[in-house]
Amino acid sequence: FLREDIDEEVAKLLELKAQLGDDGKTQFVLKTPKGTRDYNPKQMAIREKVFNTIIRCFKRHGAETIDTPVFELKETLTGKYGEDSKLIYDLKDQGGELLSLRYDLTVPFARYLAMNKITNIKRYHIAKVYRRDNPAMTRGRYREFYQCDFDIAGQYDAMIPDAECLKIVHEILNELDLGDFRIKVNDRRILDGMFAVCGVPDDKFRTICSTVDKLDKMSWEDVKKEMVNEKGLSEEAADQIGEYVSMQGGMDLAERLLQDHKMSQSKQACAGLSDIKLLFKYLQLFHVTDKVVFDLSLARGLDYYTGVIYEAVLTQAGTVSAANEAQNDTNAEESVSVGSVAGGGRYDGLVGMFDPKGRRVPCVGVSIGIERIFSIMEQKAEASPQKVRTTEVQIMVASAQKNLLEERLQLISELWNAGIKAELMYKKNPKLLSQLQYCEEAGIPLVAILGEQELKDGVVKLRVVATREEVDISRADLISEIKRRTEA
Amino acid sequence: FLREDIDEEVAKLLELKAQLGDDGKTQFVLKTPKGTRDYNPKQMAIREKVFNTIIRCFKRHGAETIDTPVFELKETLTGKYGEDSKLIYDLKDQGGELLSLRYDLTVPFARYLAMNKITNIKRYHIAKVYRRDNPAMTRGRYREFYQCDFDIAGQYDAMIPDAECLKIVHEILNELDLGDFRIKVNDRRILDGMFAVCGVPDDKFRTICSTVDKLDKMSWEDVKKEMVNEKGLSEEAADQIGEYVSMQGGMDLAERLLQDHKMSQSKQACAGLSDIKLLFKYLQLFHVTDKVVFDLSLARGLDYYTGVIYEAVLTQAGTVSAANEAQNDTNAEESVSVGSVAGGGRYDGLVGMFDPKGRRVPCVGVSIGIERIFSIMEQKAEASPQKVRTTEVQIMVASAQKNLLEERLQLISELWNAGIKAELMYKKNPKLLSQLQYCEEAGIPLVAILGEQELKDGVVKLRVVATREEVDISRADLISEIKRRTEA
Repeated sequence: FLREDIDEEVAKLLELKAQLGDDGKTQFVLKTPKGTRDYNPKQMAIREKVFNTIIRCFKRHGAETIDTPVFELKETLTGKYGEDSKLIYDLKDQGGELLSLRYDLTVPFARYLAMNKITNIKRYHIAKVYRRDNPAMTRGRYREFYQCDFDIAGQYDAMIPDAECLKIVHEILNELDLGDFRIKVNDRRILDGMFAVCGVPDDKFRTICSTVDKLDKMSWEDVKKEMVNEKGLSEEAADQIGEYVSMQGGMDLAERLLQDHKMSQSKQACAGLSDIKLLFKYLQLFHVTDKVVFDLSLARGLDYYTGVIYEAVLTQAGTVSAANEAQNDTNAEESVSVGSVAGGGRYDGLVGMFDPKGRRVPCVGVSIGIERIFSIMEQKAEASPQKVRTTEVQIMVASAQKNLLEERLQLISELWNAGIKAELMYKKNPKLLSQLQYCEEAGIPLVAILGEQELKDGVVKLRVVATREEVDISRADLISEIKRRTEA
Repeated sequence: FLREDIDEEVAKLLELKAQLGDDGKTQFVLKTPKGTRDYNPKQMAIREKVFNTIIRCFKRHGAETIDTPVFELKETLTGKYGEDSKLIYDLKDQGGELLSLRYDLTVPFARYLAMNKITNIKRYHIAKVYRRDNPAMTRGRYREFYQCDFDIAGQYDAMIPDAECLKIVHEILNELDLGDFRIKVNDRRILDGMFAVCGVPDDKFRTICSTVDKLDKMSWEDVKKEMVNEKGLSEEAADQIGEYVSMQGGMDLAERLLQDHKMSQSKQACAGLSDIKLLFKYLQLFHVTDKVVFDLSLARGLDYYTGVIYEAVLTQAGTVSAANEAQNDTNAEESVSVGSVAGGGRYDGLVGMFDPKGRRVPCVGVSIGIERIFSIMEQKAEASPQKVRTTEVQIMVASAQKNLLEERLQLISELWNAGIKAELMYKKNPKLLSQLQYCEEAGIPLVAILGEQELKDGVVKLRVVATREEVDISRADLISEIKRRTEA
């Protein structure tokens, strides 16, 4: 039993109890579906900030954006995700087409390219995807979650778009200021070549690859056990794989492996290694090699990758989430990495699977693991003394005396029409104190106070919430004064 | 047979033909599910513009935002939509909870309030909703579509939040510049009171109400027929309803009906009429009464409304969509209105349906009918000579000679790091002409050209695409020069 399993069982029992109610009758269950959550205004404010940073980066790199439906024809998703296909949500057959919720944004993107015969595009797509996985909400693993994808489709010279994808990951993780990170790089052709020269039978490449993929969660001993006992690989082959997958380095490692007497026997591996060398050359020009590691243990789960693959991990265990994770770990090494926050790779065959004539459109892309990033940003916000504002309201229109609702409505209407963000309390005669308190709570910096005297004088009393300073401003100057005081 | 029915039949047959293929074998169908569509980059650029206008308005009025999952427990949606419940998409039972895709954003909002015991909030929510309706894509009716909702929850003084909702509709439709519009207003209590005094039996209020709701699509004669023949109402009662639902006016009509010997017998109707009067008073202070009509034929379909209801329609038939619609019309009057672009009302009982103790949270809100607005904006963009840009790229990094890829990569990296939006072609040796052509097509205003001479001199040749003017700029000044030339 893991801690989270127990939590889940407890939640189930509590739910059953709630359904029974006091008198044993079935009651209504007030919850979101398993593995999903609402975002409250504070979470949304943080989410908006993170999205803006990411979108700004994607736009800086010249990406357009597209959108696709949340569900696809079931057959569109069939045969694209290997062992993970069982996690796809299907819609009920209510007469008509058989539909499934999208599992990622990559397959719908490939479908879109083939359907519209597009051979060149650089696009980003930020949207929710759905996986009937075992949720682990404390680790930021949900059944409904956002993906932020950037992809470059087109027949181009080797490794130039690939290097840009890594530059983007580097820019985003830097700008979000999440602490130190590493970007691991490998190539599916190197993995396949390695499997071949280590004596893995051809028909076991994919399944052995998905076992290697577990190295970030399991020790080598356990991975080897799975290879030998469950997947029927010879112990000798497993040991040879074990030697390779422990290797990490940079361009030098790629050069060394190109000379390796075993690895160099595989044409595929050599093609992959040459591309890794070229990639590192471009990454040097981008000044990002300090964070990039060529790591032969990186496998990535999805079936559709054909070339370079990569994954970014945060290496600082400075957050609550990291601490939680460390507690759950059986493997001490794991506490160093708080998990993947971005990943991607090259998939040159996927679009061709959709094209009636099998025309290929080479693609490379990256997906930002936004949910983990949210979790970390949320914890940072909690820990910070600064309050997260959930609105951008500049001013509250208040009254000091009774019977001034009409005057408040007239004034706020003028402010809205001038583009000022303004609120008033929906009461005929609110107390001045409660209006001021509302401003304190909501972080509204200014109050426009109306009273009999102010109306007579053609002015508004402008109060600065933080300093309690008050000045009379003529109605004619009010809008420019508010703008002057609130525009950052 | 309607034109759109025939179109649908043709589409089905073509699909069948495609599945059979040339050799009679079943082939893959490359399409999005029925009633859904992809958005291409151009559509997304327009969509982003419309969303920004709407969100800016919601924020100006001090709204926070929340998000909820795309699916809810099936029972959360049960009993909320009356006759329309049959249009809800269910998920397949794959073990676990029974789930349905959300049908609107209002019911999830009410569930959110009850679940979190929130009694006061002003929030907006922009997200997709799902209805297994008969799609009419040319009219902007889809099975997956966006809703943009703004709601105010809380126990407040009468009609103040309600008036703000109408002010918001007025601001948004003005700012989007879609042509003239009307906002029809009515109240469920006036409708119910009217039904009572006209002799409609209590148990027929809802069904007669949903027939009245068809008055914007059907003539009064057909509506009356449905009431009498299908719903079993007496001809006399129907005729009395007919007299009321032909009435339109402003505050004066509300005053007149308060004196009406029949209508004034209903307490409910009087409460509604008094609130309409108050609403108009506040709308006068907001200076929006020119667009607002008190219209007794407005019914709105949804079950959950309890008080004021409203709907905005565009009154200019200046668009292609309006022309299409006019062709399909049997009723000539209809061509005047291109259909509803916003709607909403008060629903004081919905949150209580979710609260275990039935605690009520009064709510009022408005939903912007964004899909019709998209259609209109798209047609406007098509008709305009100005090209829609799908990226914001400021500069392309180009080379005039061969073998300068490394120099291009280095320069573009500097630009990205300085926040400049920049692209380069993913070729080792692209032709200068093709680089310049790319800029023309994508609307990129500047090109930074690198050549041997420029590198030697420590400069970049900056070319203005529109004028073909070229100047040498030192590398040190390049970034500020680009910013100066492209910041609007």
